[in-house]
Amino acid sequence: MVSRNEAAEFLRGADDILILCHQYPDGDTLGSATALCRGLQKLGKRAMIKCSDPIVPKYDYLFGGVEKQEFTPKAIVAVDIADTQLIGEPNQSLYGEKIDLCIDHHPSNMGYAKRSCVDPKAAATCEIIFDVLNLLNVEIDRQIADCLYTGITTDTGCFKYINVTPRTYRIAADLVEKGADGNRINREMFDTKSRARIGMERRVMETIRYYYDNRVAVIKITLEMIRSTGATEGDIEGLASIPRAIEGVLVGVSLREKPDGTCKVSLRARPPINASDICAAFGGGGHAGAAGCTFDTTMDQAEKQMLEEIRKHI
Amino acid sequence: MVSRNEAAEFLRGADDILILCHQYPDGDTLGSATALCRGLQKLGKRAMIKCSDPIVPKYDYLFGGVEKQEFTPKAIVAVDIADTQLIGEPNQSLYGEKIDLCIDHHPSNMGYAKRSCVDPKAAATCEIIFDVLNLLNVEIDRQIADCLYTGITTDTGCFKYINVTPRTYRIAADLVEKGADGNRINREMFDTKSRARIGMERRVMETIRYYYDNRVAVIKITLEMIRSTGATEGDIEGLASIPRAIEGVLVGVSLREKPDGTCKVSLRARPPINASDICAAFGGGGHAGAAGCTFDTTMDQAEKQMLEEIRKHI
Ligand SMILES: [Mn+2]
Ligand SMILES: [Mn+2]
Repeated sequence: MVSRNEAAEFLRGADDILILCHQYPDGDTLGSATALCRGLQKLGKRAMIKCSDPIVPKYDYLFGGVEKQEFTPKAIVAVDIADTQLIGEPNQSLYGEKIDLCIDHHPSNMGYAKRSCVDPKAAATCEIIFDVLNLLNVEIDRQIADCLYTGITTDTGCFKYINVTPRTYRIAADLVEKGADGNRINREMFDTKSRARIGMERRVMETIRYYYDNRVAVIKITLEMIRSTGATEGDIEGLASIPRAIEGVLVGVSLREKPDGTCKVSLRARPPINASDICAAFGGGGHAGAAGCTFDTTMDQAEKQMLEEIRKHI
Repeated sequence: MVSRNEAAEFLRGADDILILCHQYPDGDTLGSATALCRGLQKLGKRAMIKCSDPIVPKYDYLFGGVEKQEFTPKAIVAVDIADTQLIGEPNQSLYGEKIDLCIDHHPSNMGYAKRSCVDPKAAATCEIIFDVLNLLNVEIDRQIADCLYTGITTDTGCFKYINVTPRTYRIAADLVEKGADGNRINREMFDTKSRARIGMERRVMETIRYYYDNRVAVIKITLEMIRSTGATEGDIEGLASIPRAIEGVLVGVSLREKPDGTCKVSLRARPPINASDICAAFGGGGHAGAAGCTFDTTMDQAEKQMLEEIRKHI
């Protein structure tokens, strides 16, 4: 484990830096990568970003301040990636074993990098990037502020999740002072829904089932729903938080059918239930409030196993 | 207009203080009143709160730190009240002309009090109360922190509205440090939906129709839906904003069937469309973003007339 100082020190000495995002990229991995990339470029270094998955258009603005540069990387940095598995192909095969520095906030971080700068107390990897950029004496300009604000607001559900700390608010204050347009970003991230998203919400709400005195709610996301609504990954993101939002529900389970025949489970829990503990029983992980795991079975079988495990915790 | 310092000075010299909230009380007026009341009681003063309307149970926790005291008031303070009209009866008649101090953040404040401490830059009246309590050297304890945090988060839509400033985040940081349970409060205020609400959302989303190149979306709320889900007025509140949240939609129309055979229309518009102008054609009104009108016809006939009027504006 390295400190923020050591991470900054490594970056200060590095050049031709490739920054990797995790698959199914979210606001935090993309905000971290774009803020860091622009910051390094401002220091006169060459830097670029790679992600194994396509990036949905709503995140386009993050790349506004990033210069497109092509080079053979001499240093590889992973941001917001807990495990090399999450790099996704082709980048996992290409770079998975060569990560020089990982900057992350997942408590489940596997320590796969040569240097791991991991702080589970940070609500978002963007909080750590904010510190590292300051240590590198990079001026936080409006573009960087927008990127970092995006990661913080998306990973905290607009300052709503349990991971928010006084520091989260103080960094947000600094970023807004540096020009981050929090209002526009939050509207874009949280208030605008595509037609496909509306269709998915409607279909998903039809599948809600309650268990254990209504303390557990389960939803299903099938391939057919995704096909018939034309939903993209961006449209599916966040559906998993629907069941936990229901009054009295302590554990929300989202089951998602995958094209390869597996079933991906996203768990959302309220204290005192720990979602990560439950998913750990199936080789998964995450945070206390949100965690995930994968089953090589049908959705119905995955649901049965999850419910049995949840029963022990509730 | 008096400064925060002068407001604190007045309160320091006062005793037997009655604090008034506005009618239809929200998190800011109640959070301001309860934080101020507890703060004054901690200084050894007698203080009590009055509101013309009943307070819904979800705000009960705000009163946990307030001692019930009865006395004939010698000083009257209004919090978050822009106009004496908004005090509501009976308190408006009893106290409307005797307000010694008003602490508020509405730009429209009418200056009805003997001393008006109004700061339209504050996102919530609770921001001003935070400063006044600090000036009075009241220690912000966990209960006061919860009250002030509640007003700030409810008046900013959980840090989402345009009124949020760096100072808003910094005060939130301080309050969380003093023990405010932001996560629980935000979940309670924003994230918790009743099963009836979930049922209504699902049913309403099934009714969405798009018109005029998907720039207009219409939803319907029928008596049957309300009956079959068991929805209360609280569960129906806010459904009207669903259609406008859809990507590309400029005008969202919500048609609601009423027991007396009329049809209530709620319109939500994005610039440059003015919802109030459209509703004015049918004797209704409101703001540019949100307006309403009523039809003495079936929902289908109301929809037809609305669409014809909207066509002229789009
Ligand atoms: Mn993250
Ligand atoms: Mn207010």
